[in-house]
Amino acid sequence: MNKIDTRLLREIADLEGTPKGAYNIRKNGQLESRSNTANIEIVSKTDKSGIDIHIKAGTKNQSVHIPVIITETGLDELVYNDFYIGPDCDVVIVAGCGIHNAGDKTSQHDGVHTFYVGENSKVQYVEKHYGEGEGTGERIMNPQTVVYLEKGASIQLDTTQLRGVDSTKRYTKVVVKEEAEAVVNEKLLTHGKQVAESEMDVILAGEGASGRVISRSVAQDESQQIFYPRMIGDAAGFGHVQCDSILMGHAKIQAIPALTANHPDAQLIHEAAIGRIAGDQILKLMTLGLTEEEAEEEILNGFLG
Amino acid sequence: MNKIDTRLLREIADLEGTPKGAYNIRKNGQLESRSNTANIEIVSKTDKSGIDIHIKAGTKNQSVHIPVIITETGLDELVYNDFYIGPDCDVVIVAGCGIHNAGDKTSQHDGVHTFYVGENSKVQYVEKHYGEGEGTGERIMNPQTVVYLEKGASIQLDTTQLRGVDSTKRYTKVVVKEEAEAVVNEKLLTHGKQVAESEMDVILAGEGASGRVISRSVAQDESQQIFYPRMIGDAAGFGHVQCDSILMGHAKIQAIPALTANHPDAQLIHEAAIGRIAGDQILKLMTLGLTEEEAEEEILNGFLG
Repeated sequence: MNKIDTRLLREIADLEGTPKGAYNIRKNGQLESRSNTANIEIVSKTDKSGIDIHIKAGTKNQSVHIPVIITETGLDELVYNDFYIGPDCDVVIVAGCGIHNAGDKTSQHDGVHTFYVGENSKVQYVEKHYGEGEGTGERIMNPQTVVYLEKGASIQLDTTQLRGVDSTKRYTKVVVKEEAEAVVNEKLLTHGKQVAESEMDVILAGEGASGRVISRSVAQDESQQIFYPRMIGDAAGFGHVQCDSILMGHAKIQAIPALTANHPDAQLIHEAAIGRIAGDQILKLMTLGLTEEEAEEEILNGFLG
Repeated sequence: MNKIDTRLLREIADLEGTPKGAYNIRKNGQLESRSNTANIEIVSKTDKSGIDIHIKAGTKNQSVHIPVIITETGLDELVYNDFYIGPDCDVVIVAGCGIHNAGDKTSQHDGVHTFYVGENSKVQYVEKHYGEGEGTGERIMNPQTVVYLEKGASIQLDTTQLRGVDSTKRYTKVVVKEEAEAVVNEKLLTHGKQVAESEMDVILAGEGASGRVISRSVAQDESQQIFYPRMIGDAAGFGHVQCDSILMGHAKIQAIPALTANHPDAQLIHEAAIGRIAGDQILKLMTLGLTEEEAEEEILNGFLG
């Protein structure tokens, strides 16, 4: 692990050195290090690239870190990670991908994460994406996140694209059974000529299911973003989608949500707003002594922080 | 004009007898009666079915009624009506279509209305759709409404589907130039096995353009509705889309709005809500002495009225 590795791990997983608890660190397509615990077992897949993470029933207040870093130019990988979480758990899963591309070839990580969350289990999933490097090669990340929530289970997906990702295609699907709850906090920053697309299906599949999507994005420079958040009410549940986007420079943003009420007792709400930062917000901070740029940065940090 | 004609005209255009001002009444595919005024001239098209309506510059506080009624079963018509509205006008245009179908064949009216609204002109366009009749034949109406607003012009589109329309495909497009303003009030009721689709493009094409869409719908019984309201910010303008839908019986509703910010100073907002009437709203009215059905009707009238 060199200085670049350490910086990438800090950015994407808030790690200083080795994580506590179970972990699996992947570097340049290879297993760098792994640790299991009494309740959490990580097993390499044999039929394709990726790992299975088994979390025993009743596991509480434990975490698993599975960050991925790429520092080679021209590396292109597709990884399948499956999470089997027993009933009555309360766990935090920290993923994330950092690419340092110093060369002129595209480095790409595509991750397909599938979660099977047992009855009454509670999961927080944290995923950060970050790219850097002086090379001209692109940094691409295409995550797919699929979640099946059993009765009474809940998941909070905190997914963040920090910066430096040239192209991303994100797909998220959550199937929410009775009395289960899904919360998706998506944060996304693009700059330069980057492009980002985020597609999402939250399916309220059982009575009392609830889904909430909070998507916040900032598009700077010439970057382009497009969002397709879809909330499908197949049962007597409650769904709320909220998209807020800040336009800067000459960026372009599209938000195309869809509410589908297939059940007479589905209750669905959507709100979206796209616009520049309000001038009076900046002025207010400037009267407190900040420069215009500092004020803007302060507002963005508050918005995406 | 018989009793049925009179009732249809009352439903769709609030008319008791002959309208004041300019008018063109179409019945079963034929001109029934027409009246021009000094400022408003109605001319039959020669190349296809339909009329051209010319409104002179500076025409103020005048109205034109162009209702369409169909009482024959099996009649299927496609009509093009073009409105040329000079600058500095302030006029009300009342359209609408009523179908009484007593037979077993489909009766269908498809109307393509195009409005060229001159600089600083103000137009209110009122259109109501209504179907009735003891026959098994379907009543179908597919309206297309296309509006070009010159600088500083404004239009308010009040379009309502009252009831009795088995199938509708609505398309509305408004191009809003600088300092112009478009307001679209759409109200739509479906019942039985009816289907309704409404697609809309509001294009903010000039600086200071503003667009506002307020769509309210009620879907009863087994009926199905789908909405595609799209707000496109190609200039420094303001767009707001609001969709509220009430689900009843076993109806299904989809709302798929799209906000597209192509200009860094476009400001776009969308809100949508789909759900049943809140139980406490009904209870409150029942404590005032209404039955449950009366309470529901009261709420729907308030919502669509």
